[in-house]
Amino acid sequence: MTYTVAINVMPLKDLLDPQGKAVLGGLHNLGLRSVADVRIGKRITLQVDAENEEAAKAIAKEAATKLLANQVMEHFEISIL
Amino acid sequence: MTYTVAINVMPLKDLLDPQGKAVLGGLHNLGLRSVADVRIGKRITLQVDAENEEAAKAIAKEAATKLLANQVMEHFEISIL
Repeated sequence: MTYTVAINVMPLKDLLDPQGKAVLGGLHNLGLRSVADVRIGKRITLQVDAENEEAAKAIAKEAATKLLANQVMEHFEISIL
Repeated sequence: MTYTVAINVMPLKDLLDPQGKAVLGGLHNLGLRSVADVRIGKRITLQVDAENEEAAKAIAKEAATKLLANQVMEHFEISIL
């Protein structure tokens, strides 16, 4: 069966996120002053051909670990859509 | 109250996603052959100070429309975490 899997890759909480800081400045300049602490990561969706959800998640985890996420600076979470 | 809001910005389905195509090639080279149709977007989390969830979502929608998403090429969805 084919599963649609989403992988969210976000910068670790303890690290600075300069891109997020820049966007936060932009939002404030647009008048959106009630926004704080913007963090920007990646969202990757993939179609995975696997026997069951667990197997699909395992493949997505391998993809995230080997290629998509840099675990020194980022953490990821996987969900089936 | 402060809400954590996530905005997922993804390329429109009908458009090519060259970054996704490149990653798909990389995953196949790594031996992950059961993966197909990789699409890469952004995930933005923000802290929004608002009276209720609806108001927080409205602010996030304004941020996405005005700055974060290019609606010619991308669509976005908003969720409260």
